[in-house]
Amino acid sequence: MRFACHAQPTTIDPVSLLAVGTVAFDTVHTPFRTAERILGGSATYITLAARLFVDAPRLVAVVGHDFPESCISLLRDRKIDLAGLEVNPTEKTFFWEGRYHYNMNDRDTLDTQLNVLATFDPKLPASYRSTRVVCLGNLQPQVQQQVLDQVESPDLVVCDTMNFWIDSALDELKKTLARIDVLIINDEEARQLADHTNLVVASRIIRAMGPKTLIIKKGEHGAMLFKDDHVFWAPALPLEEIQDPTGAGDTFMGGFAGYLACEGTYTFDSFKRAVLCGTALASFVVGQFGPEALYDLTPEDVQGRLDRLTTLAHVPAVDAIGARMV
Amino acid sequence: MRFACHAQPTTIDPVSLLAVGTVAFDTVHTPFRTAERILGGSATYITLAARLFVDAPRLVAVVGHDFPESCISLLRDRKIDLAGLEVNPTEKTFFWEGRYHYNMNDRDTLDTQLNVLATFDPKLPASYRSTRVVCLGNLQPQVQQQVLDQVESPDLVVCDTMNFWIDSALDELKKTLARIDVLIINDEEARQLADHTNLVVASRIIRAMGPKTLIIKKGEHGAMLFKDDHVFWAPALPLEEIQDPTGAGDTFMGGFAGYLACEGTYTFDSFKRAVLCGTALASFVVGQFGPEALYDLTPEDVQGRLDRLTTLAHVPAVDAIGARMV
Repeated sequence: MRFACHAQPTTIDPVSLLAVGTVAFDTVHTPFRTAERILGGSATYITLAARLFVDAPRLVAVVGHDFPESCISLLRDRKIDLAGLEVNPTEKTFFWEGRYHYNMNDRDTLDTQLNVLATFDPKLPASYRSTRVVCLGNLQPQVQQQVLDQVESPDLVVCDTMNFWIDSALDELKKTLARIDVLIINDEEARQLADHTNLVVASRIIRAMGPKTLIIKKGEHGAMLFKDDHVFWAPALPLEEIQDPTGAGDTFMGGFAGYLACEGTYTFDSFKRAVLCGTALASFVVGQFGPEALYDLTPEDVQGRLDRLTTLAHVPAVDAIGARMV
Repeated sequence: MRFACHAQPTTIDPVSLLAVGTVAFDTVHTPFRTAERILGGSATYITLAARLFVDAPRLVAVVGHDFPESCISLLRDRKIDLAGLEVNPTEKTFFWEGRYHYNMNDRDTLDTQLNVLATFDPKLPASYRSTRVVCLGNLQPQVQQQVLDQVESPDLVVCDTMNFWIDSALDELKKTLARIDVLIINDEEARQLADHTNLVVASRIIRAMGPKTLIIKKGEHGAMLFKDDHVFWAPALPLEEIQDPTGAGDTFMGGFAGYLACEGTYTFDSFKRAVLCGTALASFVVGQFGPEALYDLTPEDVQGRLDRLTTLAHVPAVDAIGARMV
């Protein structure tokens, strides 16, 4: 089965994707190793994943005067479009430090230095305005809306958020939610946003806030895709070793949105395929520290994981009635 | 697709299943309701589920002088074979009381009264000795072995256990594990038994203890089936309302083992179908208190849930390479 990237008869740039988010330094502690001030940030992971499906994914973010040329080159060499990367000459790059628990799932934030983010006021280059698929990485809801104000009727807007914004900026977050097509959050965030413990009920409450499609990420337990009356129970690859879960959710979003930008159709089946692409990409990134695993990934590598997912979760037909009748 | 119950050219009774376990009174508290002294016990749930696939599943258990005729009739009317149900005239029936947390997943045991179980010494009726599929419900490992001593080369032995036996009777449990084909436990029990947090690694460690097949139940997150080099990522039905999770694991085992006893083949694909049958049966039982939902269940009801599971978890093929090449 092959899916073409259908050129659309509209003014939207065919097969184009934009991601707004952070480009950051992360210091990550796991029970086994510490990595200091490595490249991170949601926009970094989203674009590095999306480039497997989309040429020159467009990045909207801000870094500080301390952001090294080596990191710029690294992204440029991977054909990330950096026209939307602003360099703030007076502030430092956003910094996050966290420590993962022994289960490699829970984590504590040890330090957050907003730096350039405190005054981030995204200005999209003219070349970005007619983008097919827009990814709103985890950021202040107001900044997500500022980006939406500057793009012309994209085919699809995909959004991430986190408990911090649900707690501290719910009204602004709801304004963002009213303008998006797909929300991607984890199970705890879904329960908190809906104020309901049952995920099926929560999915209805959240979709009534705006996004017609909801993806609930459950980490090692896979994901659930809710769209209209359809539900897809998506698998995750059982992995023997997880080095660093940082960026797995952003990578999922990049793979998901990148695949849809490429396929250019938005049916439930397209969304299912996109969820599997996001899952496959995320399975690589957790195997190494930071976004390292994404640097030299090929479509063939991704296809290998997609084939494993398909085999792993293949559901046979069962005939309970016939079983008794013979 | 229809699966016949193949009559085997052996001395094993075709399409026969035996379950040893508890027949008990349970008092169950949920955040929404309390049900006092309702019928419960692993052997009750296993046989009530297995009867959807197997005529007259054979029950091995002990009850006390307080066990009412109405409960006997209830089981007999559902065609459970009670030749192996011993009545102890001097002791009371096993009693368990527990309280579920608001998440309906975690629970605290408030009271356990062993009563008849303290001296349970199972004696199998001669008619039970050539049974095709043997289910060892959660019980002292020594009692599980006593049952195995009395059956003649069954096709398949399926076993459940719990953290209490892993803590208090590991050596005896390992003797049981060495004699079984399939172990069904939950994720926390698997981590504890293997002494390893990673479930893929844990599955190898546990299977080296004896059972060639391992099923790890993850509650609302589904289950994983490990057999040889194969893994199956089994879905669970997203349910809007859970009344009482008691007996869900036993019901899963009854549906799983019942289906296999009926199909009579033990390939990886048969095991996958059996896991889906167990999942479908368990999805009913949690919707009502105690085993009530199983009393009048029909194969058509089960087929409805199986069809929903198949739709829910259908994984499409994805071509990541072709997506970029067009």
